[in-house]
Amino acid sequence: MGKIAIGCDIGGTNLRGALIREDGHIIKRQSILSEADKGIDFVVKNLANLIQQTIKGDDIAGVGIGIPGIIDSSKGILTQAPNINNVNNYPLRDVLIEKIGESVPVFIENDANCVAIGEWWVGAGKDVKSLIILTLGTGVGGGIILNGDLWNGADGMAGEIGHITIYPDGAKCNCGNFGCLESYASAGAIRRMVKQGLETDLETIIREKVKNTSKERIPEIVREAAMQEDKFALWIWDEFGKALGIAIANLVNLLNVEMVVIGGGLANAWELFIDRAKKEAKKRGLRAPIKRVKIVKSVLGDDAGILGAGYLVFKEEGII
Amino acid sequence: MGKIAIGCDIGGTNLRGALIREDGHIIKRQSILSEADKGIDFVVKNLANLIQQTIKGDDIAGVGIGIPGIIDSSKGILTQAPNINNVNNYPLRDVLIEKIGESVPVFIENDANCVAIGEWWVGAGKDVKSLIILTLGTGVGGGIILNGDLWNGADGMAGEIGHITIYPDGAKCNCGNFGCLESYASAGAIRRMVKQGLETDLETIIREKVKNTSKERIPEIVREAAMQEDKFALWIWDEFGKALGIAIANLVNLLNVEMVVIGGGLANAWELFIDRAKKEAKKRGLRAPIKRVKIVKSVLGDDAGILGAGYLVFKEEGII
Repeated sequence: MGKIAIGCDIGGTNLRGALIREDGHIIKRQSILSEADKGIDFVVKNLANLIQQTIKGDDIAGVGIGIPGIIDSSKGILTQAPNINNVNNYPLRDVLIEKIGESVPVFIENDANCVAIGEWWVGAGKDVKSLIILTLGTGVGGGIILNGDLWNGADGMAGEIGHITIYPDGAKCNCGNFGCLESYASAGAIRRMVKQGLETDLETIIREKVKNTSKERIPEIVREAAMQEDKFALWIWDEFGKALGIAIANLVNLLNVEMVVIGGGLANAWELFIDRAKKEAKKRGLRAPIKRVKIVKSVLGDDAGILGAGYLVFKEEGII
Repeated sequence: MGKIAIGCDIGGTNLRGALIREDGHIIKRQSILSEADKGIDFVVKNLANLIQQTIKGDDIAGVGIGIPGIIDSSKGILTQAPNINNVNNYPLRDVLIEKIGESVPVFIENDANCVAIGEWWVGAGKDVKSLIILTLGTGVGGGIILNGDLWNGADGMAGEIGHITIYPDGAKCNCGNFGCLESYASAGAIRRMVKQGLETDLETIIREKVKNTSKERIPEIVREAAMQEDKFALWIWDEFGKALGIAIANLVNLLNVEMVVIGGGLANAWELFIDRAKKEAKKRGLRAPIKRVKIVKSVLGDDAGILGAGYLVFKEEGII
């Protein structure tokens, strides 16, 4: 039997961990609450418990951790993490090693980058050398694999695809800029378009469906309405797909990668936006690169991040 | 004394070659006409002559060639070259080796990529590991260096920064797309803006100056007019700088590189566009990456490409 790594994913609600074989097979899973609202110290205490529960007697090559935030992976420092309280240059690796012991090497990386690594290693991109992943969820995340290596940039911040400008005078983004991809192709963007549409007197079944519902459900409501041919809902997914297509053309013209993988919760509305996205990308892409690139849906879903985190261990330890 | 390489640059008008030391010093230069209008066979005949004239008894580690077009560098094939007649998957390396002999290794690469390598090796970027170069001339070229390596993409076409979309409904580009960077920040873009402006009745000293002049001189006329505070000319450079700034923010958010180098003939109008470009980039860039990135002018000028071509030889032959 080959080596085993632990891959972890730190979410705002749950911590998930898994034992991963060096062939990319998951052999055990664990999940506990992260308690991110109580601050980073609670998260790390829970993470140490999760790791110890997951190990239980197994001989482990190391622990890889994907975390939403800005990471200095060489130093193991969590520079910033918008969804966890009290984080400011937090020495995550050192604190964790104090708890779980020095015998297990620890590697940390941004969660979207782990997703990119996972999809490249054993997912949609397992037969290519270069890919870009876009994760469409609350916001838009991204990760870049070139020549089989993660490109994470001079500050660990490469791959912020959600913040490339699509419409210079477009809608305001959470980052402060205007017209970012994230303002057109995320759950937040869908909520903005719904809100703005409902302020007019246009006819749509969405108007009735969003009453007394949580804002988290709105993208799903818009998906259902589009399946029922609601014109406003179809227009929203068309805007979504167009912005995504412009972004894909930019990525392809710039990086000439073999594949663009689209994941995240909103990828479940695939058939509502992908044709428009591909059409727009084809219109704007240079001939050879756009002909070459495969635009595909992520295949690993929620497992991509923990698998990518596990791969980091095998790679850094020289196992694969 | 260390090894010596030949670096060549194939232009539409001239072929330039130089003997380059492994410390990046140029010790001899040659230049002859390329005769690109007579077709690729003439160009290669002239190139072989240039190389033989340049070598003259020196012991050469190899020849590196930068060429405007799409290159399959692993096979030494010139896939397409818009400025040279009769090119369609032309086996440049093999044909050249037939003429100059097998004892001298030959490496070919896209000319903009050679410029990026040159500036990284011994130019503006000699102290950084990652940079992007934009060359602003007739069109907009680009090259990407990540971790000290050229990223040239799955088809050798990465770095086509001129064809990222800045304004989705903007001016038509030569590539067929709309609103590309090249339609706003190139000599062609300046000519378009001048033409469109002069079709109205706005007052500008450009109107008189462009009479009876060649179209090649128009960017220089617009530069001179801006130096004289002509409002229309200043507006043109402002549009130019704004588009460039949006592109730079996209590059920095996506790739988190340490440096953006701006070269090409239009970089001589630096003070007319750079403040606007930096302001726009800062507005749209994510905090840490945009704070980190240095936006600088190329320092090697026309020598960047031949130096980059020479570096390819030293790198591929394992000399440096």
